[in-house]
Amino acid sequence: MMIKQTETFAIGESLPWSEVLENLPFNQQGLLPAITQQYDSGEVLMMAWMNRESIEETLATGRVCYFSRSRQKLWRKGETSGQVQHLKEMRLDCDGDTLLLVVDQTGPACHTGRKSCFYNLVKDDKVIVDAEPLIDPQELYGK
Amino acid sequence: MMIKQTETFAIGESLPWSEVLENLPFNQQGLLPAITQQYDSGEVLMMAWMNRESIEETLATGRVCYFSRSRQKLWRKGETSGQVQHLKEMRLDCDGDTLLLVVDQTGPACHTGRKSCFYNLVKDDKVIVDAEPLIDPQELYGK
Repeated sequence: MMIKQTETFAIGESLPWSEVLENLPFNQQGLLPAITQQYDSGEVLMMAWMNRESIEETLATGRVCYFSRSRQKLWRKGETSGQVQHLKEMRLDCDGDTLLLVVDQTGPACHTGRKSCFYNLVKDDKVIVDAEPLIDPQELYGK
Repeated sequence: MMIKQTETFAIGESLPWSEVLENLPFNQQGLLPAITQQYDSGEVLMMAWMNRESIEETLATGRVCYFSRSRQKLWRKGETSGQVQHLKEMRLDCDGDTLLLVVDQTGPACHTGRKSCFYNLVKDDKVIVDAEPLIDPQELYGK
């Protein structure tokens, strides 16, 4: 795997992105998982999937675009809700099989209106909700 | 999907964990992706996979256990390197198909000796390494 070459690189050493992109280990559906994190608070907002086209569009526009597995098409985050994600950094892990998107999220990332999708805390034999919506989801997605 | 019931819950409302666990949407390999985050710095450390058994062991012991896809067995993080992860919180996202593990990581999370696996920054047509090992990986894994 090409990206494995960077394991022994010092800070500042690099590979050409075009060559890394050609060799990314997309799964059988042509996708890689992408973790999305709010740049200033460090909050993990969501996890979604990207194909090659969505990665290229995200880098070109600076606005995050995923690939929707349920709709089988590009999903420009915020295209319905208006809650877009401005890309600050795109990172790859040591195996090159996971992306980390550091973003500035406008409003909530979650379709429930909550800032983050990870509002279900597993604790003491329960799954407890510990965050509330910033916005009523009816307002995000219309009536 | 059972976890979808919590979408409209107020803070503090809950479901029984045993019932949620029974209904988690594991993929065809019986796995869910798990994002791991350092509890105090907020740094995203890694992404790995968990099966039902590894989730239950992690909750029971308070030490993170994944499922290794390459080795097809439980992977008690740190069993070789000594760099264990103490669980602070386990969270589920709105769809219940991704876990967030908030941990206290002993030393580096990455097999390269770096704190986080996400040391490859995509920037200006390059993939640039921007973190260095805390420990020589030779020390972590022996000769």
